[in-house]
Amino acid sequence: MPTIVVEVMPKAVLLDPQGKAVTGALHRLGNTTVSEVRIGKRFELTVEGEVTDALLAEVQTYADEMFSNSVIEDVVSIEVAQ
Amino acid sequence: MPTIVVEVMPKAVLLDPQGKAVTGALHRLGNTTVSEVRIGKRFELTVEGEVTDALLAEVQTYADEMFSNSVIEDVVSIEVAQ
Repeated sequence: MPTIVVEVMPKAVLLDPQGKAVTGALHRLGNTTVSEVRIGKRFELTVEGEVTDALLAEVQTYADEMFSNSVIEDVVSIEVAQ
Repeated sequence: MPTIVVEVMPKAVLLDPQGKAVTGALHRLGNTTVSEVRIGKRFELTVEGEVTDALLAEVQTYADEMFSNSVIEDVVSIEVAQ
C-alpha cells in the first residue's frame, strides 16, 4: 500500500525553543559547523488503493487543517514515498 | 548555507498512540482511504561550509545518539536538502 509523507515545520520567522536547545547541546559537544537546528513533524499516511490527485488534495486539506497549526507552522512538503 | 534533513520515525512494530488518534479522527471525518498514520520528527540542520562525508558521519552519530531513542525510534533518512 502506498505511503504519503507530510512534513510540517515551524515557521522560519518564529523562535524554535526545542531547536535552540539542540543547537546549544551540539555546540557544548564541540560542534562548530551546525549553526541552527529546527525541529518539525513528519506524518506517514498509509493509504489503500492508488494515490490520485483527489486523494492528494484531500491530504493537503488534512495537512493544512489538522496536521499543522497555520499560525506557527508551515506544511513544507507532501510526497508519495517510493 | 546547506541544510541537512534528518528524519526519525517510531519503530514500525511499536504502537503509535498519536498516529492512532489521528487515524481515528480522519475516519470520523469520513475518510476511508487512510488506513494508518504514523507521526515522527523532522530535524533541519543549517550547516556552515560544505557538506562533507565526515560531516554527514557526524550528523549520523547525532541522529543515532541525540535525535532519536534507538529503543523506540529509527532514523529513516539523512539527506542534504536541495
